[in-house]
Amino acid sequence: MSSKTIPRRAVFCVSDHTGVTVEALARSILSRFEGVDWVYLVRSFVDTDAKASTVADEIVRIGGRLDDRPIVFTTLINKNLEKYVDTADALVLNTFSAFLPPLSKELGSLPSRDIGSFHGMADSKGYQLRLDAVDFTLSTDDGVNVHHYDRANVVVIGVSRCGKTPTCLYLAMHYGVRAANYPLTEEDLVSPRLPAALENHIDKLYGLTIDPVRLHQIRQQRRPDSPYASLDRCRSDIERADRLFRTIGMTPTDTTATSVEEISARIVKSMKLGDRPKV
Amino acid sequence: MSSKTIPRRAVFCVSDHTGVTVEALARSILSRFEGVDWVYLVRSFVDTDAKASTVADEIVRIGGRLDDRPIVFTTLINKNLEKYVDTADALVLNTFSAFLPPLSKELGSLPSRDIGSFHGMADSKGYQLRLDAVDFTLSTDDGVNVHHYDRANVVVIGVSRCGKTPTCLYLAMHYGVRAANYPLTEEDLVSPRLPAALENHIDKLYGLTIDPVRLHQIRQQRRPDSPYASLDRCRSDIERADRLFRTIGMTPTDTTATSVEEISARIVKSMKLGDRPKV
Repeated sequence: MSSKTIPRRAVFCVSDHTGVTVEALARSILSRFEGVDWVYLVRSFVDTDAKASTVADEIVRIGGRLDDRPIVFTTLINKNLEKYVDTADALVLNTFSAFLPPLSKELGSLPSRDIGSFHGMADSKGYQLRLDAVDFTLSTDDGVNVHHYDRANVVVIGVSRCGKTPTCLYLAMHYGVRAANYPLTEEDLVSPRLPAALENHIDKLYGLTIDPVRLHQIRQQRRPDSPYASLDRCRSDIERADRLFRTIGMTPTDTTATSVEEISARIVKSMKLGDRPKV
Repeated sequence: MSSKTIPRRAVFCVSDHTGVTVEALARSILSRFEGVDWVYLVRSFVDTDAKASTVADEIVRIGGRLDDRPIVFTTLINKNLEKYVDTADALVLNTFSAFLPPLSKELGSLPSRDIGSFHGMADSKGYQLRLDAVDFTLSTDDGVNVHHYDRANVVVIGVSRCGKTPTCLYLAMHYGVRAANYPLTEEDLVSPRLPAALENHIDKLYGLTIDPVRLHQIRQQRRPDSPYASLDRCRSDIERADRLFRTIGMTPTDTTATSVEEISARIVKSMKLGDRPKV
């Protein structure tokens, strides 16, 4: 191993709104560059001269403490606000500047400068659909209310602590998908047949699996040194669940090194749940 | 009202990964252009020649059915895959092309072409922190396990159905914030004093409120024509909650026309919960 220290470098994500999108973009792009320890600093709701000026000061101050000048990603459309940020010694990348000119040309119209153009999104139909999906997912978490499966878009199945709940919540919140989840318990796994609650919903099932050693670590945190958390029990649970998946001709997704975002995107793709209304 | 039809136009979001980021970026940018009915189509995991070629065909086929040629946002870093998309008659905007050249120059290094560079993110410490936060939030939803508030980063308070649960789940999933929520029930609101469970946690409290008419609509969906859903009851709940907020010197955030993403970003900002480790 090299003893060379990895340089720390600040990444400011500056937005006149939540900053969620610009941060995701910055992380996605910078993940392509190795050998730098990126320190992310999100500055949201930067919508006045005073706030923009404060952020510019921070860029100078915090940037100066790290190993190199900061990288700044902004979504500021207001040129006056952008000016403050531009004064700092940093590489400033403006998301809108890159894309608005070709879009304006294509559409033959100028973009709105209204920083509030996203504010009404809580009113939209797609937004309500997402909140209703979160309600549905919570009400059917962990195998309860199986009689609601008629209304589910997908029923995620797998052994306890393999990642079903966070995946379903992400599916609901991000995609507006009504995602129920059903834990394959020891009783369910004594025979390699589908539990009765799932029999009528085979088209909606999506299986998750996980490495037994990782499962053991996760269960240990939950119930240390319990039979439930033992490596033997984890191995046997996974083995029997995998046998059940094979019996019904399903290839489960392994969640061991796959994020909730990625599992969700795979489920949406393979179950054809995309292209639905959304904010 | 104008009787002019709003033109429908396809927006393809093409990614070799989940497509979540490129879609958010496209929506954020296109929300600035009014008078177009954007039809979003996300194409994720486009990581082979065959898949890129299929997407190019779709762009031509679906684009041809709508009112104008499609807009395509891509995050493809692989030039071979990008080539397929470029053949279609569409405005193609590549997120990486816009930002990689200035970054390469600044950093003095070339970006990795490994499309799998995000795949390990489920292993990171920040990712585990987010999953643990989701567990915490679920275990303290709706005022249960108040004895866990010592471990909470924030306790969101407000009347039933004002948006506490989805906000807390978003805080947990996106920011890794341990967010509990406590419903202000009729019993809690008989006196304008803090409920006993909250007394020791006043620094962690964040209040939400909502327009009574909107609350009435939401509660009607949940329990139609119940006393709980009546407009009178909604008005009285909100009035008394607002009085409680005033008593403790708190200005609640109005969730009526504010999205969960925006409320969460405001909470993170005002409670100084940002700049935490994250994937």
